[in-house]
Amino acid sequence: MSYNLDGQTLADIARGAAIMGTGGGGDPLVGRMLVQQALDEGLRVKVIDAHEVADDDLVISTAMMGAPSVVVEKLPSGDEAVASLRRLEEHLGRSAVATIPMECGGLNSMIPLLVAARAGIPVVDGDGMGRAFPELQMETFGVYGVPGSPLVVSDAAGHTALIETGTDNVQMESFARAVTIRMGGASYIAEYSMSGADVKRTAIPGTLSLARDLGRSVREAREAHTDAFAALIQAVRSSIYGYARPLFSGKIVDVSRGVVDGFTAGTVVIEPFDAGLPMVIDFRNENIVAKVDGRTVAIVPDLITILDLDSASAITTEALRFGQRVRVLAIATPPIMRTPEALEVWGPHAFGLDEPWVPVEELAAT
Amino acid sequence: MSYNLDGQTLADIARGAAIMGTGGGGDPLVGRMLVQQALDEGLRVKVIDAHEVADDDLVISTAMMGAPSVVVEKLPSGDEAVASLRRLEEHLGRSAVATIPMECGGLNSMIPLLVAARAGIPVVDGDGMGRAFPELQMETFGVYGVPGSPLVVSDAAGHTALIETGTDNVQMESFARAVTIRMGGASYIAEYSMSGADVKRTAIPGTLSLARDLGRSVREAREAHTDAFAALIQAVRSSIYGYARPLFSGKIVDVSRGVVDGFTAGTVVIEPFDAGLPMVIDFRNENIVAKVDGRTVAIVPDLITILDLDSASAITTEALRFGQRVRVLAIATPPIMRTPEALEVWGPHAFGLDEPWVPVEELAAT
Repeated sequence: MSYNLDGQTLADIARGAAIMGTGGGGDPLVGRMLVQQALDEGLRVKVIDAHEVADDDLVISTAMMGAPSVVVEKLPSGDEAVASLRRLEEHLGRSAVATIPMECGGLNSMIPLLVAARAGIPVVDGDGMGRAFPELQMETFGVYGVPGSPLVVSDAAGHTALIETGTDNVQMESFARAVTIRMGGASYIAEYSMSGADVKRTAIPGTLSLARDLGRSVREAREAHTDAFAALIQAVRSSIYGYARPLFSGKIVDVSRGVVDGFTAGTVVIEPFDAGLPMVIDFRNENIVAKVDGRTVAIVPDLITILDLDSASAITTEALRFGQRVRVLAIATPPIMRTPEALEVWGPHAFGLDEPWVPVEELAAT
Repeated sequence: MSYNLDGQTLADIARGAAIMGTGGGGDPLVGRMLVQQALDEGLRVKVIDAHEVADDDLVISTAMMGAPSVVVEKLPSGDEAVASLRRLEEHLGRSAVATIPMECGGLNSMIPLLVAARAGIPVVDGDGMGRAFPELQMETFGVYGVPGSPLVVSDAAGHTALIETGTDNVQMESFARAVTIRMGGASYIAEYSMSGADVKRTAIPGTLSLARDLGRSVREAREAHTDAFAALIQAVRSSIYGYARPLFSGKIVDVSRGVVDGFTAGTVVIEPFDAGLPMVIDFRNENIVAKVDGRTVAIVPDLITILDLDSASAITTEALRFGQRVRVLAIATPPIMRTPEALEVWGPHAFGLDEPWVPVEELAAT
């Protein structure tokens, strides 16, 4: 099931990762360009299944941390993310046989591919978030007992901080966030070092390939002038996510946006094309709850993505504008993200919402 | 010249360190209590001269970082500061034969004594600031080429961050400050690991003993009902600092205080007992410039300390109050703190002042 990444597959993953970013996580485009550059230089990226890693092998998760907008303005060379990996390996006294995304949605789908190319190691097809989330403790790795610490954070100057907080992943996130801000708002991290056995037990499997399949569905539908949304739903149904449905179609008539606790928080209002009540979506980096007439139709951690009606391209919360014609898609989270211990970390309460999580497929049935 | 610390010497150092704190650095009292507790448990603190350290021995500087008020509210056990030392030793693969204060003024005069007691190593009689300064790059160690990094910052929970910024001590300060804030506002650090040769070359020698001599002068003058200020000036004259003079006596008639860039910044106005113009002292954590009628009479890095007129106890900038009867004392900095490279780091410009540094003894002569 392993494969070497080519340019088209890379573009498909980026397109699908934007959908799985649920409005947050940053546009994968800049990351895709950096990986493409590495491929053009003749470097290779091998995507492997978790079961191809031996149980006692070491795997380290890699990512960027902070504001994707900073990454766009100050392009990384790729060495920054590798530097964090190498520093963590040095600390552990062992080399990683592979890296794995912590977050398959948004820009962070691309960073581990860049690390894989530059460090000459494969990348595991899976991740710790199954979408985009705003904080480092929000990973299945941590939910199921892998400490995120020791974590290394690096910047372009080669400066590093090695953070050790035992099993306290919330403090780890806090310290790494503080240093990242002082590094200019964006940094590169290596964290959640784990055994192959832990990867198999705790990672959400196949999420890079799901992103690829979503991206491919949209591309092929565009080429064939067929319904991209139907193809997306079909692609989700063939994955462990299993369920997706279009929630709403309409025109954006209002967007309000502010910064709350360091998050981009706000609300978008979408009016239906036919006469009817609008959909209101609250976001907090990512889209977190969608309502019609005060009734919740999808809520975090289920995925809520706003796509351009014509191109089926995902629209990030920063890019939402008055007048955009959009379709809202909901994707169910897989079972590994729906356990009580998982919902404790990323259920509605973690985002300041007062209502319980109800699976999107149940909400659709009511 | 080495000696074992007893309770009276400890109290003298604390009293003198408050004077050398120039209004900042926190009241040494809480630190003195913690060291006294260690002495009461039978632990020993040996104070040694720099020349007693072999050239290739390892010495590590220790301190608390952040808000002294947090330390008062959440007393450290002493293990926190030792944890940073041990973590840095582990990283370096070597043990420190001694610790050294980074800052002899204020609370940080006491922390290395606590580390020395708890870690069972001596403390070098000297430091890197020769007074109190607000930031970690403001140390003679760094001014004369010793990198502050790698630095370890620890909290009471045993969480650590190991920060590596090469020779960039300003970024080191920035990252450590950011983590310290997330640690609740106070942390314990180990930094400026250096050889015995570096200690001899870059440390300001004898500053713990100068603090002791200042504190003893005040104590003995109180006991004998003689002039404590004359005794203080005499003690300074016998040290490498060489020069001190009373700048002003009067009553505090106004104190304004705010927070600027994380510093306690403000101004105190002191009216003379006789008819005459008031003295105005600006502070930024520490007292930084004293003026009468717009004319500068002492300016950073020379030491400006406000003392209670009756007890000759130093008053921190936080403790300044309307109606206090005070005497202002100026102490010249020693030559090692007055070189162009040193003034670059802690001259008036480093504190946002627009005027050049003029030695306090020259200002007195004009």
